[in-house]
Amino acid sequence: MSANEKYKTSQDLFERAVKVIPGGIYGSKSPGFTVPGEFPYFFTEGEGCRVKDADGNSYIDYLCGFGSMILGFGNSVVDDPAVVQLRKGDLLNCPSPVFVELAERLCKLIDGMGWSVFAKNGSDATTLAVTMSRVHTGKRRVLMAKGAYHGSANWCSANEYPVLDDRDYVHTFPYGDEEALKELFDRYRDEIACIILTPYHHPTYTDQVLPQHTWYPLVESLCEKEHALFIMDDIRANFRLSLHGSHHYFNAHPHLVTMGKSLANGYPIAALMGTPELKKAASSLFITGTFWTSSVPMVAAMHCLKAMEEWDVQNHMNQMGKMLKDGLKSAAEAEGLKVNLSGPDAIPFMTFPDDPNLYHNQIFSAAMARRGVYLHPHHNWFLSYAHKTEDIEETIDKAGDSFKEVKRHFSK
Amino acid sequence: MSANEKYKTSQDLFERAVKVIPGGIYGSKSPGFTVPGEFPYFFTEGEGCRVKDADGNSYIDYLCGFGSMILGFGNSVVDDPAVVQLRKGDLLNCPSPVFVELAERLCKLIDGMGWSVFAKNGSDATTLAVTMSRVHTGKRRVLMAKGAYHGSANWCSANEYPVLDDRDYVHTFPYGDEEALKELFDRYRDEIACIILTPYHHPTYTDQVLPQHTWYPLVESLCEKEHALFIMDDIRANFRLSLHGSHHYFNAHPHLVTMGKSLANGYPIAALMGTPELKKAASSLFITGTFWTSSVPMVAAMHCLKAMEEWDVQNHMNQMGKMLKDGLKSAAEAEGLKVNLSGPDAIPFMTFPDDPNLYHNQIFSAAMARRGVYLHPHHNWFLSYAHKTEDIEETIDKAGDSFKEVKRHFSK
Repeated sequence: MSANEKYKTSQDLFERAVKVIPGGIYGSKSPGFTVPGEFPYFFTEGEGCRVKDADGNSYIDYLCGFGSMILGFGNSVVDDPAVVQLRKGDLLNCPSPVFVELAERLCKLIDGMGWSVFAKNGSDATTLAVTMSRVHTGKRRVLMAKGAYHGSANWCSANEYPVLDDRDYVHTFPYGDEEALKELFDRYRDEIACIILTPYHHPTYTDQVLPQHTWYPLVESLCEKEHALFIMDDIRANFRLSLHGSHHYFNAHPHLVTMGKSLANGYPIAALMGTPELKKAASSLFITGTFWTSSVPMVAAMHCLKAMEEWDVQNHMNQMGKMLKDGLKSAAEAEGLKVNLSGPDAIPFMTFPDDPNLYHNQIFSAAMARRGVYLHPHHNWFLSYAHKTEDIEETIDKAGDSFKEVKRHFSK
Repeated sequence: MSANEKYKTSQDLFERAVKVIPGGIYGSKSPGFTVPGEFPYFFTEGEGCRVKDADGNSYIDYLCGFGSMILGFGNSVVDDPAVVQLRKGDLLNCPSPVFVELAERLCKLIDGMGWSVFAKNGSDATTLAVTMSRVHTGKRRVLMAKGAYHGSANWCSANEYPVLDDRDYVHTFPYGDEEALKELFDRYRDEIACIILTPYHHPTYTDQVLPQHTWYPLVESLCEKEHALFIMDDIRANFRLSLHGSHHYFNAHPHLVTMGKSLANGYPIAALMGTPELKKAASSLFITGTFWTSSVPMVAAMHCLKAMEEWDVQNHMNQMGKMLKDGLKSAAEAEGLKVNLSGPDAIPFMTFPDDPNLYHNQIFSAAMARRGVYLHPHHNWFLSYAHKTEDIEETIDKAGDSFKEVKRHFSK
């Protein structure tokens, strides 16, 4: 079946979409971010580690709703109590008791954190963290790594237009470059409010980078010297490295931690947590949102946390991720191809050498999609608790044929 | 029963909350925004127009989840299909077909609008509207009414700190003051990107103000002359005045319209819509959010819109609101008290004359809460489709005794 036939419903829907939605599908879910014409654009359902697109094609999924579905799609351990709460009431005039219970639970669970506020988008949490840092320190400048993603707010998004001044005090450095970081702290002495970092570097379109062992000690000593706050943006990696926050895994000690995505297995909630010392500063801000106290996502988070704790999900995802990485490497080698698997085992990404535009990735991902495996060509992948040995085996099996296609394509 | 006994569970929960959440409950749901000690702080469920607090007290509710529950709490016409979708999948890797269907439906329904993007918070939509205006016009300045609420983003929120520069290009004018508006357009000639307005003025802590008939023609002619965009922030009033947007009700012609709250009867979704001419400008922005394509709130919105259309809900809410206003006025007069009922019938608010600090409101609202009616002392009220004649009668009946309390309190 040709790609046009296989994805016909997706493409028909997209044709309708462009008439009433700017770009048809905007942002990170845009067809242009995958391989246009060779990927599904619309999905209808998910179960475990499998998703179904609008044409009825099924995929073993390694995007997990951009990392959110850490227990897998349609997990009844989360969905059953969420539906019970939905029937009682999601958005009431004030929070429900679960608002307090979730904050209490997170404060016990997340290393070093003494309070929590809840919002919807990851961007709400990162923007609040930066705002709070500025207000608390009385300083303006923000440091972040080049290519790091901290959300879609103007201060950190791809919307760089001269008429927007949100980035005027935001400065970037190459991830892990200690000299560059020291130089920025030197240049803006007494002016730096905060540095915001992801636990490790997971830029799009390229290999992932783990922090060298001297990285966090340096970041922390520079922050201490300059009375700047250290924000750990754990939205993407959260709970795949450690149940106690990715900073625990890397032995880092941030002042503020942002979470979202996997916190409630896909229910819309984000959290900003902070050290006890910063609670007063947090109270001085007006923090609000109509949906920010809704209880369904909080009930989902409580049950997601419970399941993660009881099932040792980090260990399972790491095992499955390791198996996937090793299997892909072997399958590539069997075809005489080299691949680079980067990032933590539970959040891997694959590139081919000498392929800066990721053409090989696109051919490979399109071939895998045709065979029923969803591996994003440009964005890191995610394992979930729902991925089992047989899913990984099936994936590796299909990768063999897909590597063959890559080889054929580039030897023409 | 004393207030301390009646609200004991709420107060105990709040004591726990302050230990792990800055301020205990932040923002517009903070006890400090009602009458501390005399109002419930936590709710557990809702059905129709009634909500139950954590102590098991029941209330006829006139806040409706800050306007969201336009069909009433737990409306199965919305919740049943939402739960079906939840079981199939809420957050998948890409949108579901309902993403397109909802945009198509809204474009048909909302006067003058040709496209839609979906987000979570109302603030997402208003901030996107302002960003889009700046990028499209190449100009920086934003005009808004003093005391107007457009969300919790820094450019428009109560977080006014010298170290935050988000408001540097935001200028305010007294609502409805035509000379002040003309003066601003004069002073910042060639620099104004947009004006953002709510359909009518609904500031907190004071009477609501409807636009004079010359207001929108003036706004529109100034915008046209200056090539500035006119944003209608319809998040709070949406669908209580007209099914076609509140701008339709007031015969106004905005370039951009923001919606949220009542769009999906409390499910978390916001929308930014625009005229066909602005679709290209909208496509040039990077608009994204992990949860922004989730389908449960979109399914809820589809069924909420259908119900609103079939049930003629605007008419019903206006009738009930009129009955409430008239009844409260008569009940006050029976006690020799004067009250001012302002705003549209479906979104009323009540004040007492010569009561700038709303002490009378606080006594009255506390007395009503004690009797099982939730009337916010400082924020406008909302009717919903679930409010029926007998609920209004019960409210007016209880208002009689509460007005007596007000009278007693201030004649001491």
